[in-house]
Amino acid sequence: MALAYDGAIQRLIDAFGHLPGIGPKGAQRIAFYILSAPEDEARELAEAIEEVKAKIRFCDTCGNVCESSPCPVCLDPRRDRSVICVVEEPKDVMSIERTREYRGLYHVLGGAINPMANVGPSDLKIAGLIKRLESTGADEVKEVILALDPNIEGEATASYLSQLLRPSGVKITRLASGLPVGSDLEYADEITLGRALAGRREA
Amino acid sequence: MALAYDGAIQRLIDAFGHLPGIGPKGAQRIAFYILSAPEDEARELAEAIEEVKAKIRFCDTCGNVCESSPCPVCLDPRRDRSVICVVEEPKDVMSIERTREYRGLYHVLGGAINPMANVGPSDLKIAGLIKRLESTGADEVKEVILALDPNIEGEATASYLSQLLRPSGVKITRLASGLPVGSDLEYADEITLGRALAGRREA
Repeated sequence: MALAYDGAIQRLIDAFGHLPGIGPKGAQRIAFYILSAPEDEARELAEAIEEVKAKIRFCDTCGNVCESSPCPVCLDPRRDRSVICVVEEPKDVMSIERTREYRGLYHVLGGAINPMANVGPSDLKIAGLIKRLESTGADEVKEVILALDPNIEGEATASYLSQLLRPSGVKITRLASGLPVGSDLEYADEITLGRALAGRREA
Repeated sequence: MALAYDGAIQRLIDAFGHLPGIGPKGAQRIAFYILSAPEDEARELAEAIEEVKAKIRFCDTCGNVCESSPCPVCLDPRRDRSVICVVEEPKDVMSIERTREYRGLYHVLGGAINPMANVGPSDLKIAGLIKRLESTGADEVKEVILALDPNIEGEATASYLSQLLRPSGVKITRLASGLPVGSDLEYADEITLGRALAGRREA
């Protein structure tokens, strides 16, 4: 016996080992869990993987992932069509939905400008955003919220977009930077604390 | 839009969320990874899951997982058939193989005695072990190494087995307890340190 499992088990461990956040030990643990799990649970997982590849596509309007385009958010008549929240990834849409504070539409760029990873403006869904801002009537956009990650790539993308969109005359806003709720002033890094100071509001 | 993803994505996140060591955030990260991964990689993962359920079985001799029984270890003519190493799980076989210190056979119990989880001796593959000890000639077993986990369940199982096997006259050994290599005496718990003292050897 070599230092690997018999055929199928090793292939399963290897396949799981490629996934983000799963190391060799975790992959082994999952493989043995699947081995002893009910047939149904294993089949469900395998089918879910194949289903997601077969069914999921991007919304032609907002770029979010969905099963049919336009996506449920773009189709929802109760959403406020005058506000578009621009995010990097589909999971950011879910994060904002969870706040239950936002009732507008979204635009998913599919990433952020990152010269180190060779991602430029043309690799992001920016053209579609411009096109959406040109619509008039009931669908007229009055505000674009740039909800990008507060890191170098997100900041660069936000600067690029706000320069690009300024001529359109639409109101452009950014998420507030500051101390996370429940955090401790003592442990805040100086940049965050600086932003919190600069963005101070009347109590 | 409810606070869940569109159909197939949510099903994939849920399916991954059931696996050991994967939380909701990790499941979401993996689902989006699969969504953007090449078709081939996703199919490989789905097929590996189904293949492991279809192909993998237990060796009738040693109880280890394998694609055909007897398993490659039991069939290997270079292995020393006079020593059987008793372990709890198939992954323990791999851990011992990795040491490259052991050339005997294995016996996988499929767990340890654990009254809290309703696992008694009859739930483990102990009858098969007894039967293997009764063979004579070239296959005669001279030593049984109890390589069980150094926790309450493992210790209970080891005590039970050593009482059960003593009448057979075969030599019964246990793995040494002591300080892990590379560890620090200062941080060793008192039970481990006690065992290391009790098991001290001449330098």
